[in-house]
Amino acid sequence: HRQWKCIQIQRWLICVLIGITTGLVAVIINISIIQLTELKMKIVTQAIEKCVKSACLYQPLLIWITINAGLVMIAALLTVFVAPVAAGSGIPQIKCFLNGVKVPNVVRLKTFFTKVVGIIASVSGGLAVGKEGPMIHAGAVLAAGISQGRSITFKLTFPLFEYFRNDREKRDFVCAGAAAGVAAAFGAPVGGVLFSLEEASSFWNQALTWRIFLCSILSSYSLNFFMSLYHHHGGDLAYPGLINFGKFEGTYEGFELPIFFFMGVIGGLLGALFNAINHKITIFRNKYVTIRFLKVVEVIIVSVVSATIAFMMMFLSAQCNPLGQDINVDLQFLCEDGQYNTMASLFFTPPEDSVKSLFHDPLGSFQPLTIIIFVLPYFFVACWTYGLQVPSGLFIPALLIGAAWGRLIGICMNAICPDCLWSQDVAKYALIGAAAQLGGTVRMTISLTVILIEATGNISYSLPLMTVLMIAKWVGDFFNQGIYDKHVHLAKVPILEWEPPPLSINIHAREVMGTPAVTVREVCLVKDICRVLSDPHNCHSGYPVTNEEGKFRGFVLRSQLLILLKHKVFMERSGPDDRLELAVFRDSYPRYFPLSIVNVSEDEQRCHIDIRPYLNPAPYTISERASLPRIFRLFRALGLRHLVVVNDNFEVVGIVTRKDIWKWGHHGKS
Amino acid sequence: HRQWKCIQIQRWLICVLIGITTGLVAVIINISIIQLTELKMKIVTQAIEKCVKSACLYQPLLIWITINAGLVMIAALLTVFVAPVAAGSGIPQIKCFLNGVKVPNVVRLKTFFTKVVGIIASVSGGLAVGKEGPMIHAGAVLAAGISQGRSITFKLTFPLFEYFRNDREKRDFVCAGAAAGVAAAFGAPVGGVLFSLEEASSFWNQALTWRIFLCSILSSYSLNFFMSLYHHHGGDLAYPGLINFGKFEGTYEGFELPIFFFMGVIGGLLGALFNAINHKITIFRNKYVTIRFLKVVEVIIVSVVSATIAFMMMFLSAQCNPLGQDINVDLQFLCEDGQYNTMASLFFTPPEDSVKSLFHDPLGSFQPLTIIIFVLPYFFVACWTYGLQVPSGLFIPALLIGAAWGRLIGICMNAICPDCLWSQDVAKYALIGAAAQLGGTVRMTISLTVILIEATGNISYSLPLMTVLMIAKWVGDFFNQGIYDKHVHLAKVPILEWEPPPLSINIHAREVMGTPAVTVREVCLVKDICRVLSDPHNCHSGYPVTNEEGKFRGFVLRSQLLILLKHKVFMERSGPDDRLELAVFRDSYPRYFPLSIVNVSEDEQRCHIDIRPYLNPAPYTISERASLPRIFRLFRALGLRHLVVVNDNFEVVGIVTRKDIWKWGHHGKS
Repeated sequence: HRQWKCIQIQRWLICVLIGITTGLVAVIINISIIQLTELKMKIVTQAIEKCVKSACLYQPLLIWITINAGLVMIAALLTVFVAPVAAGSGIPQIKCFLNGVKVPNVVRLKTFFTKVVGIIASVSGGLAVGKEGPMIHAGAVLAAGISQGRSITFKLTFPLFEYFRNDREKRDFVCAGAAAGVAAAFGAPVGGVLFSLEEASSFWNQALTWRIFLCSILSSYSLNFFMSLYHHHGGDLAYPGLINFGKFEGTYEGFELPIFFFMGVIGGLLGALFNAINHKITIFRNKYVTIRFLKVVEVIIVSVVSATIAFMMMFLSAQCNPLGQDINVDLQFLCEDGQYNTMASLFFTPPEDSVKSLFHDPLGSFQPLTIIIFVLPYFFVACWTYGLQVPSGLFIPALLIGAAWGRLIGICMNAICPDCLWSQDVAKYALIGAAAQLGGTVRMTISLTVILIEATGNISYSLPLMTVLMIAKWVGDFFNQGIYDKHVHLAKVPILEWEPPPLSINIHAREVMGTPAVTVREVCLVKDICRVLSDPHNCHSGYPVTNEEGKFRGFVLRSQLLILLKHKVFMERSGPDDRLELAVFRDSYPRYFPLSIVNVSEDEQRCHIDIRPYLNPAPYTISERASLPRIFRLFRALGLRHLVVVNDNFEVVGIVTRKDIWKWGHHGKS
Repeated sequence: HRQWKCIQIQRWLICVLIGITTGLVAVIINISIIQLTELKMKIVTQAIEKCVKSACLYQPLLIWITINAGLVMIAALLTVFVAPVAAGSGIPQIKCFLNGVKVPNVVRLKTFFTKVVGIIASVSGGLAVGKEGPMIHAGAVLAAGISQGRSITFKLTFPLFEYFRNDREKRDFVCAGAAAGVAAAFGAPVGGVLFSLEEASSFWNQALTWRIFLCSILSSYSLNFFMSLYHHHGGDLAYPGLINFGKFEGTYEGFELPIFFFMGVIGGLLGALFNAINHKITIFRNKYVTIRFLKVVEVIIVSVVSATIAFMMMFLSAQCNPLGQDINVDLQFLCEDGQYNTMASLFFTPPEDSVKSLFHDPLGSFQPLTIIIFVLPYFFVACWTYGLQVPSGLFIPALLIGAAWGRLIGICMNAICPDCLWSQDVAKYALIGAAAQLGGTVRMTISLTVILIEATGNISYSLPLMTVLMIAKWVGDFFNQGIYDKHVHLAKVPILEWEPPPLSINIHAREVMGTPAVTVREVCLVKDICRVLSDPHNCHSGYPVTNEEGKFRGFVLRSQLLILLKHKVFMERSGPDDRLELAVFRDSYPRYFPLSIVNVSEDEQRCHIDIRPYLNPAPYTISERASLPRIFRLFRALGLRHLVVVNDNFEVVGIVTRKDIWKWGHHGKS
C-alpha cells in the first residue's frame, strides 16, 4: 500500500515538472522569434532607407529573401534529415498517439529539438505559419521524455519513474503534456485540458483530469512569470499568455446575430475551400516530391515566393497612415515622414501581432483594398505552406485570414450605417471572422471555443463565438473533412471514429477478424516460437496462447517472447523457480530489438519454453457472433489494439485488430 | 440509410427542444422567486414600519414566520407525499443516473413539478438554499420526458421519438438536459457541457458533445431572451444569466497568491467541517426522522428557526448605512431616515443578490462584526437545511458563506495596508473565498472552475481561481468526501469510482461474481421461465441463456421474458414465422409490469418458448481468471450493469453485477 502512495506522488511530481518545463520551452521559442524578427526587420529597414532615394530597391528585396530562405532552410534540413515526423503542426500526430495508434518517433527527443529549432526558424523566416501547434507537440514530447526518465537519442537512462514505462501510463502523461502546450501557446489552461480530453479516446478519469489540470496551470504560471520578467513587468502573473488578442470591450445587439451566423457560413465555405486546395496539393506532393532534396527545394521555393509576394504587396498597396501612439512598427518605406506603410506592418511583425492589429487598430487603419490585396495571396500561400517539410502551425494563418475578411465585413457594416453605435466596433467582426475561419478549417469543437474565449479574455462574446464555430463546422463538414482529419486520412493511419460505421449492426466478428490467427502453445519448442516471430506475413504485436486441447488460455506480447528468448528462459536450462522479474520487461520498453539479434543455437532450438507465468491470463475476448458496433465500442472505450475472437468451445478462431475495424469504417463510407 | 439520417435529425431536434424549454423553465422559476420575495418584503416592511413606533415588533416577526413556514410547508408536503426523490439538490441523483445506476422516479414528470414548485417555495420561503442544483435536475427531467415522448404520470404517449426508448439513448439526452440546466442556472454553457461530461461515465463522444453543446447554448439564449424582455432590455442577448455576480475589474499582484492559497486551505477546512456536520445530521435524520409527518414537521421547524435567527440578527447588528444609488433594498428598520439596515439587506433579497452585495458593495458597506454575526449562524443553518425533504441547492449557501469570510479577509488586508492599491479591492477576496468554500464543499473540478469563470464573466482571475479550487479540494479530501459523494454513499447507491480499488490486482472474477448464476435454456418450458422470474432471491435484470449442453449462448433481459409471456409467444401456439416486432419491446419501456399480471393458464405452463430470436447473442463476457481492475474498467468504460463470467468450456459460472464490484471497492477502502 505504501508503494501505491509513492507512485501516486511520483505521478503528481512528473506533472509538475512537465508543466513548468513546457512553459519554459514556450518562453524560449517566443523570445527567440521576437528577437530574430526584430533583427531581421532592422537589417531590412536600414537597407530600404538607404535605397529609397538611390533607386536600388532590389537590394533590400534580395537581403530579405536571403535571410528568409536561410532561416527556412535550417528548418527544412532539420526536418527532412533528422525527424520527418516533426513536419507540420504535430496536432494530427498527437491525435493519433492519444487515440491509441503507434506513430514512430513522435515523442522522441530528436523530434523535440527539430520541432523547437524548426518552428523558431520557420516563423522568423516569414512563412505563413504559426507556432501554436508545434508548441503543443513540444509539450507532448517533453511529457513523454520526463515520464519515462530516459532518452533513446542520447542513450541515457535515469533510474527514475521506472514504473511508468508502459503504453498506458505514457499516454496519460502525453495527454498532460499536450494540455500544458495548449495552455502555454494560448494562455488557455482550461482549453488545454479540454483539448487533451477531446482527443484522448479513453473515458473521462477524474484523477487524471486533475493532474492534467495542474500541469496546464503550472505551464501558464511559468510562462507568465518568465514573460513578465522579459517585458519588465516582473511578478505580474495576470500578464496575458503568448497569444494576446488584446482587450475586447463592448457588446453586441440581438439583430447582429444573423450577420454573425452568415459569417459562420462564409467561414465554413472558405475553410472547406482551404482544405480542398490543401488536399490537392498534398496528393501532388506525395506523388512527385518524394526525394529528400526536392523536399528541401520546395520549402525554399515557397519561402522565396512568400517573401517576393509580400514585398510586392507593400509597393502595390500605397496606404500610408500617420504614426500613432499604439503602433509599434514604424516602417516608413515609401511613405512620407511621420507615416508608416500599413501593409508592411502586417508583414514585418510576428504574425500574432498582425492578428492583433487587424482586431484592434481603429476603423480607418486599413483600407478595404489593402485588406483584399493582403488576404487573397496570403490565403493561397498559407494553403501551399501547410504540409511542407517544416514545423508549421495552422492556427495563426487561419486567424489572420479570418480576421482580415471579418474586418472587411465590419467596414461594410460601418458603411451601411455610419452613425450607428453598434457598427463602430470592427473588432468584434474581426474576431467572429477569425473564429469562423479557424472553425471552418480545423472543425474542432468545445476545446476551440474555450481556447478562443480564454485567449480573448472576454466572456461576453462566448455565445456568438460558439454558435459561429458550430455553423462553420456544419457548413464545412458538408463539403469535406477537417484539415487534421484529412492529413490523418491521407497518412492511412488506423484512427477510430467516434461512432461505429452506420449500418454495421449486421456485420459480425466472423467477417471482420483476420483468420487464421497465429497462436502459440503454453509450453512449446523454442523452434516454434522462432518460426512464429520470424513470419513476415504476421507482424501483430501479440499472439493468443492455447493449451494442448486448443483452448484459449491467454495472450502473450511479441515483445515478451523476444525477451524470453534473449534471456534464454528455457525449461531445460533453469530451475522451476527462476522467473524473469517484471522490471526486465519494463526496462526494454519502448524500443524492442528485432529477432535477428537474438542468437539461438541449434541445441537451444530443441528446448522448451513455458509461457504460462508471463502471459495475460484473461484478456478481453469476444464471441464470433458479436456485431461490429459492439467490437467497435470495446476498442474505442478501452483503447485496445487487438481482440481475440473465440467460438463456443473457447477456441481461438481469429483476431481483430484496430486496422480491421478501421477498414470496415472506410468501406461503409465509400 | 435514410432511416439513419432521419434518426440523426430527430436527435438534433430533441436537443433543440430540450435547450429552449429548459431555458424557459429557468425563467419561470426565476421570475416567480423574484415576485414572491418582493411581495413578502413589501408585506413585512409595511408591518415593521407600523410597529417600530408602537413597540409591537412581535407582529412583523409573526407575519414573517407565518409566510415563510407556509411557503416552505408547500414544498415539504409536495416532496414528502408526491416525489421524495425531488428532495435536495438533485445533483447526486443525476450523478448516479449518468453513472449507469437506475434511480427510481428520478426523471419522472411528477418529480419535475415537485422540483419546480418546491424550489420556488423553499427559496422564497427564506430557507438557506439556492435554486441552481434543482434547476439542473429540472433540465434533466425535461430532457428525459421530451426524448421519450411520453409521460407515465399523465399516461400520455405521443407517437414521437420511439426509437429513443432505451437506456442508452435516454442517458445521452439526460446528459444534454443537465448541461442545459447548468447553462441556464449559471449562464455557463461551456461549464454545462463539462459538468455533463465529468459526471457521465462513458467515453468522450464528439457527436454527442456537439449536441450537448447546442443544447446548452440554446438554453442560455432562451433564458437571456426572456429575462431581457422581463427586465425591459428586450433583445440584449448579452444580458447576463441567472446568477450574475456583477463585473469584476482590476487584477492581482504576484505576492497576493500566497494569500489566495491560504484562503484555499481555509475553504477546504470549512468545507470539510460543513460536510462532517451535515453527515452527522443526515445519519441522525435517517435514524429518527422516518415518518412522513415528522419530516414535514422538521422542515417547518428549520424554517421557523431560520426566520427567527434572521430577525434577531437584524436587531443585534445595528449597522446602518446611508442609502446610496447602488442599493436596491431600502429596509429602514431601526435605522434613521435615509439609512438602511445592512443585515436586513442580506436577508430580504434573493440569495443571489446577497452574494452580489458581498462581492461588490464598497469597502465600508459591511462592518466586520456584521459579517461575523451573519456568517456563523448561517453556516449552521445551511448545514442543517441540506438534506431536508425540500428541493434545495447548495451552491448559493456555499458561495454566500465563502463570500462573507472572503470579504472579512479582504477587510483585514485593507487594515494591514490601508493605502496600498491592491488592498482597495475587496471583491477579489470575496470571490476567492466563495470559490474556496464551494470547492471545499462539493469538490468538483474543472466544470466548477469554468462555471465560476463564466458566471463572473472575468478571465483574469482564472489562474488563482483554479489553484484555489485545487487546494480546497486537496485539503478537504484529506478529511472526508465531497458532500454529493457523501450523500450518494449514505444512500448506498452502487456508484463506481474513477479508478479500480487499490491492491485489487490479485482479486479475480471468481471471487467477485455471484454464484451460482440463474440461467435459462434457449428453448424451455413456460413453467421454468415462470419459476425463474418469480424467484424472490434473484432480482437481476437479465439472465444468461444456455443451450442443451450447458454452453453459454447469449443474454436475455427479464423485461423481454415478461413481454414474451404476456404476448404468449409459445411454440405450440404460433407459426414459425411469428416474431414479435422490436417496437413491442420498445413500447413497454421503461416501466415493466410485474409477473403477477401475466395470466398463464395450467395448459400454457406446459408450452415451450423459443428465446433464440430475441436474445443478445454476443454480450460482453469475461474469463473467470480475469482480475478485478480489468472487470472494473469494462464496467466503467461501457456503463455495464452485469457481466457474464465463463470458464474455459464457455459455460456460465457466475454473473458480476455493478453492486458486486462496488462492494469490493468499499471493502478495499475500510
